[in-house]
Amino acid sequence: MSRIWNFSAGPAALPQVVLERAQRELLNWNGSGASVMELSHRGKLFMELAARAENDVRELADIPADYAVLFLQGGATQHFAQLPMNLASQGDSADYIVTGHWGEKAASEAAPYVNVHVAAHSRDTGYMQLPPRASWALDPRAAYVHYTPNETIHGVEFHEVPDVGQVPLVADMSSDIFSRPIDVRRFGVIYAGAQKNIGPSGLVVMIVRRDLLERASRPMAKIFRYADHAANDSMLNTPNTWGWYLAGLTFEWMKEQGGLAAIAARNDAKAAKLYRAIDSSNGYYRNPVALDARSRMNVPFTLHDDKLDALFLQESEAAGLLALKGHKAVGGMRASLYNAVPVEAVEALVAFMQDFAARHG
Amino acid sequence: MSRIWNFSAGPAALPQVVLERAQRELLNWNGSGASVMELSHRGKLFMELAARAENDVRELADIPADYAVLFLQGGATQHFAQLPMNLASQGDSADYIVTGHWGEKAASEAAPYVNVHVAAHSRDTGYMQLPPRASWALDPRAAYVHYTPNETIHGVEFHEVPDVGQVPLVADMSSDIFSRPIDVRRFGVIYAGAQKNIGPSGLVVMIVRRDLLERASRPMAKIFRYADHAANDSMLNTPNTWGWYLAGLTFEWMKEQGGLAAIAARNDAKAAKLYRAIDSSNGYYRNPVALDARSRMNVPFTLHDDKLDALFLQESEAAGLLALKGHKAVGGMRASLYNAVPVEAVEALVAFMQDFAARHG
Repeated sequence: MSRIWNFSAGPAALPQVVLERAQRELLNWNGSGASVMELSHRGKLFMELAARAENDVRELADIPADYAVLFLQGGATQHFAQLPMNLASQGDSADYIVTGHWGEKAASEAAPYVNVHVAAHSRDTGYMQLPPRASWALDPRAAYVHYTPNETIHGVEFHEVPDVGQVPLVADMSSDIFSRPIDVRRFGVIYAGAQKNIGPSGLVVMIVRRDLLERASRPMAKIFRYADHAANDSMLNTPNTWGWYLAGLTFEWMKEQGGLAAIAARNDAKAAKLYRAIDSSNGYYRNPVALDARSRMNVPFTLHDDKLDALFLQESEAAGLLALKGHKAVGGMRASLYNAVPVEAVEALVAFMQDFAARHG
Repeated sequence: MSRIWNFSAGPAALPQVVLERAQRELLNWNGSGASVMELSHRGKLFMELAARAENDVRELADIPADYAVLFLQGGATQHFAQLPMNLASQGDSADYIVTGHWGEKAASEAAPYVNVHVAAHSRDTGYMQLPPRASWALDPRAAYVHYTPNETIHGVEFHEVPDVGQVPLVADMSSDIFSRPIDVRRFGVIYAGAQKNIGPSGLVVMIVRRDLLERASRPMAKIFRYADHAANDSMLNTPNTWGWYLAGLTFEWMKEQGGLAAIAARNDAKAAKLYRAIDSSNGYYRNPVALDARSRMNVPFTLHDDKLDALFLQESEAAGLLALKGHKAVGGMRASLYNAVPVEAVEALVAFMQDFAARHG
């Protein structure tokens, strides 16, 4: 077997051409005679790479100059904690909109640093719907409003940016960043673990309105202070250079794909194909999420008889379709359709699903 | 030019055979049909890789079962802050032995979380010596004693583990870990950024005595608590999977090299060759560090006339010798001789230095 179709929820598929380029230049990057991993982050060559990656992502996502772009470590989970350390003062409260597993986690990791107020949630629907905006109990004095535009496990996605007034909106975009155009000005902070739409794991990309950097008031080490990272161009300490390099190659690839609008059109088409296959299966396959909240990135689905699950996974893997097992919290299957998953992969999956249903009616 | 000799202080040279293997399997790791970067950290294949890397490093460094081995993120700098969060209670003090730039930084990042007591330092010598053990003002009630066995910038190294009694000894071994055998039982915590002797940047390896994990008492997010990382086999959140993979390959390579004793002998020989060339140059080259404190890993040296520095750097780079520029704090040159730098590289450097001195007498 050579390359398979990879539906992993993360770490996830990377663009084939990005991997091929990384492979070609792994031992000798950019004529340096060394791997990009072996070079000082403070050397001229790496500094150029780092600046180019930032410029490319600024162009790609139309990021205004009054927003900093940071390349950090720790995964989104660390920033669940580090964001309130930086954005809230002792005694402040913050509003959390909880629409799935990751929103829950963001709120619980924040709790030691800010008074967490769950302003809306959809627990009672098993996270199969989004709480209507009109039902949100927002506090105009909140330090910020945090939400999760796409929930990777539950397959629930916001298709519009919620209006939260003057309070800064903070979005954990780990699983749908750069999958469509972003109106950055609507946000105070956007952050994402790289391992779905940006690059390998171990890197976090954060887009933060510069005035918010000045908020950090409590005693903390410099390494936790975003303002210090911004002032040092994300080289306050040694960054994940390999991750930054691959993110840069992926940003280039996204530009070559036509940018975020073109990528969004492809993502819409991919998701539509898969949901159509599920919805037209006469109940053989089912997706439980409310129609207006279905995720374009993560599509959980169940088989009409869960005794077939093991066989489905075994046969799909043999057919070159990898990582379709659903998260244990929801069971069944899940296909993640991030940017780097090509239309052909979805077509292969749909064909397999139809064939499987025909053979195991 | 193909591959050069790389004397970078970090990110630094990786073993050539490790890079070649990573290149071969970059698009299809272990028959999976995917890159190792594209696989879920919770999948069977990656879990096996992770466990194998841990087993290999336990065997390599003879790590007892009552020590946990953690694969973390954030660089050593983040752990300068996170260690006191975990090892000290509010109001505790800790002893710091400051023998260079990184010891200074460890102390300053710890200050928001513990009362930092500098029990010994060598500032007055410009960090060219180590403070004699007899002069250390240790506090038997300290939460721990922190030191830096090797100072990357100043090229100063402890050649014995200091006896600090019953207080747990915490060592930032970033720049000399696995360069020689380690008597792990002498330490409470050993930690290291990977980017010198282990792998690429963005990974931290920590070896921690398990009873110390129970100390963390202050309110903090789970993601900052080492006990939670240990309980989750360093998969509390998505780890740096590429870094973990390369660390594993490097541990295998170190075992193939004959283990830490054999590696230490090679490192001693490499350093001896370079110091001999410096010391026998009749003052053309100079290393300012006290003889008994000279680092085997980082060798700073100056030219007798600093007007030749630029020419030395230009000619050495043209001769295929990379990254010899010294840190701005000490000036001149620096050659880092980590495990992956072969004897041939040192021989090439020595030959160049002698030739340069002959031509520019």
